[in-house]
Amino acid sequence: MQVGLIGLGKMGYNLSLNLMDHKHEVVAFDIDSEAVAKLSNMGAEGASSIEELVSKLEAPRKIWMMVPAGVITENVLSELKGLLEPGDLVIDGGNSNYKESVKRGKEMKEQGVHFFDVGTSGGMEGARSGACTMIGGDKEVFASIEQLFIDICVENGYLYAGETGSGHYLKMVHNGVEYGMMQAIAEGFEVLEKSPFDFDYEQVARVWNNGSVIRSWLMELTQNAFSKDSKLDGIKGVMHSSGEGKWTVEEALDLQTATPIIALSLMMRYRSLDEDTFSGKVVAALRNEFGGHAVVDKD
Amino acid sequence: MQVGLIGLGKMGYNLSLNLMDHKHEVVAFDIDSEAVAKLSNMGAEGASSIEELVSKLEAPRKIWMMVPAGVITENVLSELKGLLEPGDLVIDGGNSNYKESVKRGKEMKEQGVHFFDVGTSGGMEGARSGACTMIGGDKEVFASIEQLFIDICVENGYLYAGETGSGHYLKMVHNGVEYGMMQAIAEGFEVLEKSPFDFDYEQVARVWNNGSVIRSWLMELTQNAFSKDSKLDGIKGVMHSSGEGKWTVEEALDLQTATPIIALSLMMRYRSLDEDTFSGKVVAALRNEFGGHAVVDKD
Amino acid sequence: MQVGLIGLGKMGYNLSLNLMDHKHEVVAFDIDSEAVAKLSNMGAEGASSIEELVSKLEAPRKIWMMVPAGVITENVLSELKGLLEPGDLVIDGGNSNYKESVKRGKEMKEQGVHFFDVGTSGGMEGARSGACTMIGGDKEVFASIEQLFIDICVENGYLYAGETGSGHYLKMVHNGVEYGMMQAIAEGFEVLEKSPFDFDYEQVARVWNNGSVIRSWLMELTQNAFSKDSKLDGIKGVMHSSGEGKWTVEEALDLQTATPIIALSLMMRYRSLDEDTFSGKVVAALRNEFGGHAVVDKD
Amino acid sequence: MQVGLIGLGKMGYNLSLNLMDHKHEVVAFDIDSEAVAKLSNMGAEGASSIEELVSKLEAPRKIWMMVPAGVITENVLSELKGLLEPGDLVIDGGNSNYKESVKRGKEMKEQGVHFFDVGTSGGMEGARSGACTMIGGDKEVFASIEQLFIDICVENGYLYAGETGSGHYLKMVHNGVEYGMMQAIAEGFEVLEKSPFDFDYEQVARVWNNGSVIRSWLMELTQNAFSKDSKLDGIKGVMHSSGEGKWTVEEALDLQTATPIIALSLMMRYRSLDEDTFSGKVVAALRNEFGGHAVVDKD
Repeated sequence: MQVGLIGLGKMGYNLSLNLMDHKHEVVAFDIDSEAVAKLSNMGAEGASSIEELVSKLEAPRKIWMMVPAGVITENVLSELKGLLEPGDLVIDGGNSNYKESVKRGKEMKEQGVHFFDVGTSGGMEGARSGACTMIGGDKEVFASIEQLFIDICVENGYLYAGETGSGHYLKMVHNGVEYGMMQAIAEGFEVLEKSPFDFDYEQVARVWNNGSVIRSWLMELTQNAFSKDSKLDGIKGVMHSSGEGKWTVEEALDLQTATPIIALSLMMRYRSLDEDTFSGKVVAALRNEFGGHAVVDKD
Repeated sequence: MQVGLIGLGKMGYNLSLNLMDHKHEVVAFDIDSEAVAKLSNMGAEGASSIEELVSKLEAPRKIWMMVPAGVITENVLSELKGLLEPGDLVIDGGNSNYKESVKRGKEMKEQGVHFFDVGTSGGMEGARSGACTMIGGDKEVFASIEQLFIDICVENGYLYAGETGSGHYLKMVHNGVEYGMMQAIAEGFEVLEKSPFDFDYEQVARVWNNGSVIRSWLMELTQNAFSKDSKLDGIKGVMHSSGEGKWTVEEALDLQTATPIIALSLMMRYRSLDEDTFSGKVVAALRNEFGGHAVVDKD
Repeated sequence: MQVGLIGLGKMGYNLSLNLMDHKHEVVAFDIDSEAVAKLSNMGAEGASSIEELVSKLEAPRKIWMMVPAGVITENVLSELKGLLEPGDLVIDGGNSNYKESVKRGKEMKEQGVHFFDVGTSGGMEGARSGACTMIGGDKEVFASIEQLFIDICVENGYLYAGETGSGHYLKMVHNGVEYGMMQAIAEGFEVLEKSPFDFDYEQVARVWNNGSVIRSWLMELTQNAFSKDSKLDGIKGVMHSSGEGKWTVEEALDLQTATPIIALSLMMRYRSLDEDTFSGKVVAALRNEFGGHAVVDKD
Repeated sequence: MQVGLIGLGKMGYNLSLNLMDHKHEVVAFDIDSEAVAKLSNMGAEGASSIEELVSKLEAPRKIWMMVPAGVITENVLSELKGLLEPGDLVIDGGNSNYKESVKRGKEMKEQGVHFFDVGTSGGMEGARSGACTMIGGDKEVFASIEQLFIDICVENGYLYAGETGSGHYLKMVHNGVEYGMMQAIAEGFEVLEKSPFDFDYEQVARVWNNGSVIRSWLMELTQNAFSKDSKLDGIKGVMHSSGEGKWTVEEALDLQTATPIIALSLMMRYRSLDEDTFSGKVVAALRNEFGGHAVVDKD
């Protein structure tokens, strides 16, 4: 199948190679012309603009966007709108907010263009050689592109999830669960690190990966990480986050659902961004006020 | 190797079969004589008392206890103390508190008996055909029983963790992590359940198990559970707990470690045991007091 | 001072009486004409429409809205826009989202109308005889209405907080803190209720109100509540919430601020709305899957 | 009444002055002889040892201990045991664990000595001029010392709570609630500090103290603290804790009670003790493993 691929970052580049491995024809564009050139060397057809990319695709066109969520996705879609024809099809494979995807799907539909929101998991490695995808959009139209997902995903690794928005919704919640699982693992190792015993963390992760209830890909990655830096001495515990954990919590609030684990996983990440906290100062000052407890002065 | 197995519950019975599959000779005792008879039919030698079991073992004896933590473990060990000789060896494969194991290890040592605390994970299935074990005790003595763990565990599925207590410590923290991971998964599905979309939970668990970042044995079990009852309509959301999640939180408090995910996972289980809460009543009454907000009267 | 009061609910009605106690002239409107009639009997001038209310006020008009946040506030402001003249002044005393207030302030300003967002605390009793208000808007214009706040608030009970939006922002955060304080108190009493001792909750609240570190108005209300129903047997622990606790959490997320107490206070309220949870079912099903632990069947 | 006061720290010294203000006769001992000398100058009778203190008291003796919980309390009680006679009475006014108090009460009783566990709140200021006390012990014997509590407490500021242990139990839970309320206030100010507005924190605390739902002594102390250091620039947000918040959480766990607010208040204190966290490193390393997200290297 011929696919127009917009966005050759870590995910998009690997996905393109994956598509080509399966004999799909990729026409690729990225604002970074070097990335386009690099992929051309691997067998893709390069395009120097979105307009050129569209012109090189046969109708009905199939365009897969793999660009950052938010403004850039909005801009690319806005440019595509002026170029596409009824019957064309756009896949947003990025991490867009599902509410945006619902809105975009409606707008596209008015123009006769099919829109699919596709959540993609599995990291760079997955994009390259076997991803996991969650797909929202028109069920009947989906049949026309299902082969793409059969090819680029691991076995059983794609799901037509339902109407437009459901793909990104599932990916959003997937990431919320991911935050919780990561923090659970991390807290476990923090207890071990402060424990009276002298554990070999890599070996702990290794044994937990073989036969235990908590065996998981995240635990395998934990094992990998410790194999490279046995006590993670080289890095700081600063935990950044992208939008989806936050969206999951906001969605939970909108649905009046208690999700303490996902919420706290996110908040501990926020906490890690600050060396000191104003709330800590307030509590310390209060303890001093009522109990005369010493405060720690700033140097 | 000849092994005396005390305790033929779900875990101990399966473990015995596993040992016998690997040509180990099992002498078994349980207060339930039917369980003993059943295992005898499978090739084990039965014993009608702990005393008989000890007498049937050749010195130096190897005894594997698979009995409930707490009082029963204490009683069995107390009886064994009067029967064992220097050089004998006892494995506590149950879910004992590591502090107890440290204490017991010391007491046994005074008698010349080797004590190993072994945390076992993987459920009944694991006990039967490939467990995951975390082992604390004397390193040099461990060599004399290592073959047992090579045989009953999955590949790479056992770890000599360190001195006495470290095995049960690892298992304790393992369960804390398990609580957090389970609650993370559960919260994700609760958001899906309240979402505006109509997801097929079994299919969601299936796709999350194939290529995604959160693929894990727990997610496979989630898929299994939904395959049997697609919306879990048949059961109540009452979440019981055994001791180890609680011990992990208590240990974290002792170590002054923040483990919000593990703590909240446990507390949401406690919350699920009550249909109504006194704290809820207090908040409802307060809202009524200051704002005149209606309370929900009890029928 | 002449004030147009729109909205004679629990808060607005009491506020009107409070204003009249201090010799202010109130022109009042509510969609409930009986409320208007009732207040007229107390000395206010009634109006049968917003248009009539505006026409009865001398320019520059001072209008105080005390209506539900959201759609109704929006509608009233929209109607006012067509009726007011440059120099007029509108106070939104409701619980509007501060982001809305910032937007509305800008729109009003374009029309030459002064807009003040006023967060009001203290409940009905406060509105009647001494409120607490947090005020956002133009500082210089504020001088022209400061006397109103001097009169209706308790001593030291009003604050010009800053530019437009800051009043509702402070009230939002105030409510977030309130949620946390209420849940802290409630959890304390739940521990007492499950404790091995037989405490008299009213007496506990009483002693905690006299000389202790946690003495507070909320604790006084707790004492009141227990004085009426010593074990709160008559009510259910269903904890409803209005928008501001949720907005505080959402704001905290936007600011990447860890607010576990405020977030969990809200989430425990959500939890109280459900008799059973889907997350609980998932955890119960998982425990059954790996450990054969019994689930609680639905009747 | 004649009272033997053991322990002249911040609380005990102030309590002694308070007792003497009410014409009670104080015989005082502290290991710091200067503190004894200082109090003697204020009218107390000094003792240079516990033995001397006991000998100076008329039977039946009334001894009030105001010493640190744990080992020191244990040692003082142990020494007293050898000195006291049936009919004597001991008050433990410190922050002992209620379980210890239950045990001590039983031991004392065997010796014919009455034991009262008294939780004291209100800080140093309260001890000096009007405390809040929660009292456990024999109800009939309590009558013989009630006047002491009438005198040293604020009006309505003492409660006979029930049998031995209930006084310290109430104080324990009181502190748990205190932790939650403090953290709630602190989080509110942290949101304000990160907000787009430029709030005057002292003024905010002032207005919240006058007429609002969250007015409280803790908010007054917050106002005091900000009046001295308007942005708390001089101190670090390191939040220490004594035992009682932790005991409340442990008790809640034992009672299978969900207390997320109290638990998280404590855990955020623990978090504040560490500049960096191992859990943070694990999460950061995992993000790097699956997504290639950059980690923050240690300098």
